[in-house]
Amino acid sequence: MNKRPWTIGVDIGGSKIEIAHVDQLGAIQLKKAWPVAKHGDPYPIIETLVENIEKSLIGKSESPLGVGIGIAGQVDTNTGIVHFAPNLAWKSFPLGEELKKALNMPVVITNDVRAATWGEWQFGSAVDCNDFVCLFIGTGIGGGVVSGGRLLLGSNNGAGELGHLIVAKDGPICSCGNKGCVEAFAGGWALAAHAKKALAQNAEARVLWEALGPLSAKTVIQQFKHGDPIAKKIIEEAREALIAAAITIVHAFNPQRFILGGGLFHGLPEIKDWMHFGIKKNALPALAEKVEVLSSRLGLEAGVIGAATFAMKVLKKG
Amino acid sequence: MNKRPWTIGVDIGGSKIEIAHVDQLGAIQLKKAWPVAKHGDPYPIIETLVENIEKSLIGKSESPLGVGIGIAGQVDTNTGIVHFAPNLAWKSFPLGEELKKALNMPVVITNDVRAATWGEWQFGSAVDCNDFVCLFIGTGIGGGVVSGGRLLLGSNNGAGELGHLIVAKDGPICSCGNKGCVEAFAGGWALAAHAKKALAQNAEARVLWEALGPLSAKTVIQQFKHGDPIAKKIIEEAREALIAAAITIVHAFNPQRFILGGGLFHGLPEIKDWMHFGIKKNALPALAEKVEVLSSRLGLEAGVIGAATFAMKVLKKG
Repeated sequence: MNKRPWTIGVDIGGSKIEIAHVDQLGAIQLKKAWPVAKHGDPYPIIETLVENIEKSLIGKSESPLGVGIGIAGQVDTNTGIVHFAPNLAWKSFPLGEELKKALNMPVVITNDVRAATWGEWQFGSAVDCNDFVCLFIGTGIGGGVVSGGRLLLGSNNGAGELGHLIVAKDGPICSCGNKGCVEAFAGGWALAAHAKKALAQNAEARVLWEALGPLSAKTVIQQFKHGDPIAKKIIEEAREALIAAAITIVHAFNPQRFILGGGLFHGLPEIKDWMHFGIKKNALPALAEKVEVLSSRLGLEAGVIGAATFAMKVLKKG
Repeated sequence: MNKRPWTIGVDIGGSKIEIAHVDQLGAIQLKKAWPVAKHGDPYPIIETLVENIEKSLIGKSESPLGVGIGIAGQVDTNTGIVHFAPNLAWKSFPLGEELKKALNMPVVITNDVRAATWGEWQFGSAVDCNDFVCLFIGTGIGGGVVSGGRLLLGSNNGAGELGHLIVAKDGPICSCGNKGCVEAFAGGWALAAHAKKALAQNAEARVLWEALGPLSAKTVIQQFKHGDPIAKKIIEEAREALIAAAITIVHAFNPQRFILGGGLFHGLPEIKDWMHFGIKKNALPALAEKVEVLSSRLGLEAGVIGAATFAMKVLKKG
């Protein structure tokens, strides 16, 4: 593979870090992932990251063009500063500069969902599409929007916070402090929190659920598939919230494609049909008519592929 | 004025049509408005429009470059076809072609709120701003979005349907058939409908309100200002819905300016402060920090000025 220009893609998530060698056609050669814990001090995490990148380069005859990082949070690509990464509790950290020093190669930092959106655009479900929205449903919910052939950034690089569209102004409290964001119904953390709350009031069900191990979004989905009534109610609320958010998104951006990804989505792929039928049935007909709802083609690799190939684009320009 | 190139701007609203002569600096010379009723047959309406335009041209030494029309509904600027104008009950009508024939001059058709957004961008509250959202609150609620220096169109010219962002998935039914769109709380028709419903259950209040004349959004606002408890409740619900929509808009687009206009807004300018404080208090801090909430500088003339100057841009290019 390394005859083609290549970069290293890094996806820094809330629970794990993933690296991959990715060529300019989006093909992955080597991949490695390890867990990460929330920790206000970024240095130990970076040390492990640098070690793993250096190890991955041993024996390579050709050097990568650089490193592309996608990280959940508010990021400035121009300066490489991570303004706020809530999952890791990092604030105003010069990630780009620190990694560049440690690795002695160019580093490009972007937001993780924006990186994944870029990946889908170049090599995934949005190839040749100029108007699409990606919605990544995982522990949190994030989005990326391409409109008129351009990735929307917004006035300070924060466009596409689609997990925090308010779908029920009197709904449950979200991690952001608002009431009724779609994430507060359908993000992984919310599924687990709603189950915990329901089980606190139902000793019988609690015994059943406790036998399944630690409570998580996965447990809720598993129980939903087994027909458990508590899980059913939680997922039905999540479904309605996701449909409302989908309609809001269609009305705001009028996309041609609506692309779904993220760990929770891949665990509950029924979401695709729910959103498809919800949009077709209830969005404004002129806008709903032509929307296609699709799964992310790159799946859980969208993050690393997107981070790597976005970096390649930036570095080739420079 | 007519030494500068000029066009005729037309704003076709749900209850009136307005025309104006507008020069390339956005200055209005002549203005005329007349009422219009919902009517599936567009021809009588167009006849009156043509007559009024021709009358306005009598004695003019220099001809306009053409006519720019802004109309509420789904419109295709390239073909001049009005796909759907709900307020007038027009469907698939070739407005551009018909007017061009009748007037013997170029005609450019666009959506009314997009025209007004263009007007604010060129001559109003959004001059020199590359990332802003206009929200026009009238009988209905519409929006226009400029992101990264470009007016968002979406995949089939329908981006910015901001009246139909869902803020309460179990809320009141909207004109579009969904539940809980912001328009179903805060559009002029909704204020009147909520008041009608509340008064049906309250004979005493009904007598009081009936003395004020026919029930409309204006009556509700007037009663709100007089401290009437029914009006207060309706406006408070509208305020909460508008704040939720504002937060959703900030999270979706990350605008630098948030510009408010429309008849209902100009009758209840407190909305500006409500939205300002709602965004600052509850939107994600990194996005809320720099947003400025402003009134439309062109006010109720944004529509004709925008339609006229948008046409000028298109015609000068052609």
